[in-house]
Amino acid sequence: MNKAVPMVEVWRGGLLESAHSGHAVICDASGSIVEAWGDPAAVIFPRSSCKMLQALPLVESGAADAFGLSESQLALSCASHQGAALHTGAVSRWLADLDLSEADLRCGSHEPYDRTERDRLIRAEARPCQIHNNCSGKHAGFLTLTKHLRAGPDYVALDHPLQRAVKAAFEEVTGEASPGHGIDGCSAPNFATSVLGLARAMAWFAAARDGGSARETAAARLTRAMATYPEMVAGEGRACTELMRAMGGRVAIKTGAEAVFVAILPDQKLGIALKIVDGASRASEAAICGLLIRLGVLEAQHPAAQKRLGAPMRNWRGIETGVLRLAPGFA
Amino acid sequence: MNKAVPMVEVWRGGLLESAHSGHAVICDASGSIVEAWGDPAAVIFPRSSCKMLQALPLVESGAADAFGLSESQLALSCASHQGAALHTGAVSRWLADLDLSEADLRCGSHEPYDRTERDRLIRAEARPCQIHNNCSGKHAGFLTLTKHLRAGPDYVALDHPLQRAVKAAFEEVTGEASPGHGIDGCSAPNFATSVLGLARAMAWFAAARDGGSARETAAARLTRAMATYPEMVAGEGRACTELMRAMGGRVAIKTGAEAVFVAILPDQKLGIALKIVDGASRASEAAICGLLIRLGVLEAQHPAAQKRLGAPMRNWRGIETGVLRLAPGFA
Repeated sequence: MNKAVPMVEVWRGGLLESAHSGHAVICDASGSIVEAWGDPAAVIFPRSSCKMLQALPLVESGAADAFGLSESQLALSCASHQGAALHTGAVSRWLADLDLSEADLRCGSHEPYDRTERDRLIRAEARPCQIHNNCSGKHAGFLTLTKHLRAGPDYVALDHPLQRAVKAAFEEVTGEASPGHGIDGCSAPNFATSVLGLARAMAWFAAARDGGSARETAAARLTRAMATYPEMVAGEGRACTELMRAMGGRVAIKTGAEAVFVAILPDQKLGIALKIVDGASRASEAAICGLLIRLGVLEAQHPAAQKRLGAPMRNWRGIETGVLRLAPGFA
Repeated sequence: MNKAVPMVEVWRGGLLESAHSGHAVICDASGSIVEAWGDPAAVIFPRSSCKMLQALPLVESGAADAFGLSESQLALSCASHQGAALHTGAVSRWLADLDLSEADLRCGSHEPYDRTERDRLIRAEARPCQIHNNCSGKHAGFLTLTKHLRAGPDYVALDHPLQRAVKAAFEEVTGEASPGHGIDGCSAPNFATSVLGLARAMAWFAAARDGGSARETAAARLTRAMATYPEMVAGEGRACTELMRAMGGRVAIKTGAEAVFVAILPDQKLGIALKIVDGASRASEAAICGLLIRLGVLEAQHPAAQKRLGAPMRNWRGIETGVLRLAPGFA
């Protein structure tokens, strides 16, 4: 944490009110660092930013095709969705297609981030179910592979064939043995790696082409699915969805809890990974905007970029109170 | 920001996942530093942590007594409440007693943090009003003084007699000329000071006794009101309320946005102020627990302390995922 560098500043009334530091790496397809800030060797948990890595076995095993998953479902398997009707409907149908139900999920329940669905539940005096969990698409993907493998129901166990396959793919594409794992919010194991390892994995995704190895083809399909169905990856109003739309399907990006953000740039064959050490998403969103603008794939003046970096912050009466800026020397 | 020191760590799976740095000062009644971490001279916005300073003119002017405010109302004037029925009812009655209405407030509206009231509004298809704003008690106090002064309705304007009185009191008890101001979430001016200035103000509150100057007597009354009515200062489940209860009314504490926390310890005549530079409340809550435990006024094993510092973090299925700890060398 010590080598983290200032990345994002929060200003109010002409004074610096708060500040965020972090690590970031831009990597090329050879696995080399193009540019870095902070410590590329810093060990982090990618959290949900590595969902496309966790989905590799689903596709490369042939399970996705055996069950006829659509590109939109592949996007959902990489999602931290907000539990809107769009997402819950898709996961419900997916589970039904597998002859499974909500009870087969292992992600737990939380209130959906989507306001319309949240309010609908409250008015119906209904409780959120596991399908509302932002990770339920990933877990539907896990269940698909579990069924394909005819493996046991506890698919989040570290020694389950699915998680062993995830770990093998994760370590190959990060180019590092994982130094440990934690249990994620959705109960799945989350494997640690360095910021460089995660950026290297994203660059490998960026360079992956159809017709390569099964793993490469899987990566190319997942990247395309995310960039083509940004609304499935997060939801209306959220950073991943709005920024991928702003970049016109040319770049896939993904946030993770505790302020991780990654980007896959197929045209440039570049990958990005960043971690804000304090875990604040407002800062990881601003920082990824800064790097995407620097690389020329996001317009600084686009409303989706401005919303996270540069537009005035306003209070409950709409009065301008301050602004988020990149720290001098970053991006 | 550069001299901030590590204060709080977030661990997962045996690895350090996130970390928070900050500044903290413990001050005595002479205004001298008893102990400090980071940079005592760091300039911060106290945000809501200085509500008891903003309430000084209300009491010392005689307005509070002229309008017969209760001790519970004085606590509410220092509150960041969660908009539960307890709070909204009290503010509504207070406004009615002033022959004023919700429309006279200048704080703006936001959804109440209290789940019961939030769900009630949603079921009634009703929108939150300004009374739900966590600052509406402070604003009811502002309106009381405005009426007492026969001043104009725009009581959040920097040149309004009320805000001029707030600034004068603020600068006297912090012992510093304020280097600037910002506009707070509730639209009131928020005056900047150093972490030391804010700790000095809290120590002055801690030493203030009834029968001293009008300002000292006001401070003693406000401290007693906060410590006696902790449920009015925040609400069920929240840090200020639970921790003041855990300390049995001997200490008044207050959180502020962007991770400021202060404490007033009348028995020891000590004041505390701290700021986590990244603005994360989970860290300021853990850090103030650490300092209160260190000073012997909070039991480390008390559930209210453990909830913020030491108890396992659990995910949506109740599985232990990690823990918040103090950084080595802090508190």
